[in-house]
Amino acid sequence: MKIAILLYDRFTALDAVGPYEVLGRLPEADLTFVGEEKRPYRTDTGRLAITADATLTETPEADILLIPGGPGQSDLMEDGPVHDWIRAIDTTSTWTTTVCTGSLILAATGLLKDRKAVTHWLAMGQLGKYGAVATEERVVFDGKYVTAAGVSAGIDMGLTLAARIAGDQFAEGLQLAIEYDPQPPFDSGSPAKAAPEVVDFLRGRSRHVLK
Amino acid sequence: MKIAILLYDRFTALDAVGPYEVLGRLPEADLTFVGEEKRPYRTDTGRLAITADATLTETPEADILLIPGGPGQSDLMEDGPVHDWIRAIDTTSTWTTTVCTGSLILAATGLLKDRKAVTHWLAMGQLGKYGAVATEERVVFDGKYVTAAGVSAGIDMGLTLAARIAGDQFAEGLQLAIEYDPQPPFDSGSPAKAAPEVVDFLRGRSRHVLK
Repeated sequence: MKIAILLYDRFTALDAVGPYEVLGRLPEADLTFVGEEKRPYRTDTGRLAITADATLTETPEADILLIPGGPGQSDLMEDGPVHDWIRAIDTTSTWTTTVCTGSLILAATGLLKDRKAVTHWLAMGQLGKYGAVATEERVVFDGKYVTAAGVSAGIDMGLTLAARIAGDQFAEGLQLAIEYDPQPPFDSGSPAKAAPEVVDFLRGRSRHVLK
Repeated sequence: MKIAILLYDRFTALDAVGPYEVLGRLPEADLTFVGEEKRPYRTDTGRLAITADATLTETPEADILLIPGGPGQSDLMEDGPVHDWIRAIDTTSTWTTTVCTGSLILAATGLLKDRKAVTHWLAMGQLGKYGAVATEERVVFDGKYVTAAGVSAGIDMGLTLAARIAGDQFAEGLQLAIEYDPQPPFDSGSPAKAAPEVVDFLRGRSRHVLK
């Protein structure tokens, strides 16, 4: 099973690495990080670089495509080689997936038109601009298109998808292998649960990142 | 605040990237991935490479040291340059932290002697060999030594530590920023919760990885 994870400058690491850690352990997984160039791509913080081991051209097909999010998403909203590649690989994929604002890139290619999708809570208002139907769930399935909410939601998406592909028991084994028994110290992981001042603080900061 | 994350061949990506995603967003965080050599280090699956931007020698001090786990941990259990570096940097650190089997490396340096610590559930039996006191909690604090259980536990550790460093409200903001409102599809994230056949399956497979 070929799995392609798109890299680009200023992506958010956990968006890609959460699903990688799960999907990369599926039976016969053949997972590759891909980019426009074969080089390390630096994340939004600038402090982490993950290597693209193949170019887009070298990766003409995939059973699973994953597009992570991150501030660099804003550089990939215009039609061009990355959109062409996404549309082409989508014709070969069984599952086309995104995490966080990766869904905005996918929506901009036209592939989420009239489809239910989710993104980072700060960017939910943008999905509609590209014809997608914003849906406030952590993991949203619409046919073969699977979108996950912000950053850490990719882990839940990965496990949910793993169960569809390899069965519940295998997915339960993956969850146990990564000891995913979450015990966050606070209950502030969604805007509905966090304190209003915490939500406002992030909304204020996000003006610099999300337009 | 200087944060150093150790890389080595065959580490587990999420062990490092979970805490990175949280701690790297602390105020004035100056986070660096470090390795014996300045080069990309490949994970346990072989499919992901993260670049070490500095050598151990170039990194003589850190406020936070993080040691991830992974199968490559078994190559770092003998005394040598990495142990020397860990012991040296520990004399400068405010917090010395590990995720998963990273605690075995730290224990092997002698720094966890008689201290409470945790590791991946499949490796808990090994902590005692190095004088640490195996403690079945997701995140274990013993003075400045903070150890987290398997792989995904590093996210909980990162948030808990962020709260100690920058206060609860800031940590709640980090949790909301990464939308960490976990909704795993199964309740199989610990050996006490997973089905016995799932636990047995992983115990069988682990013989190849964990001695």
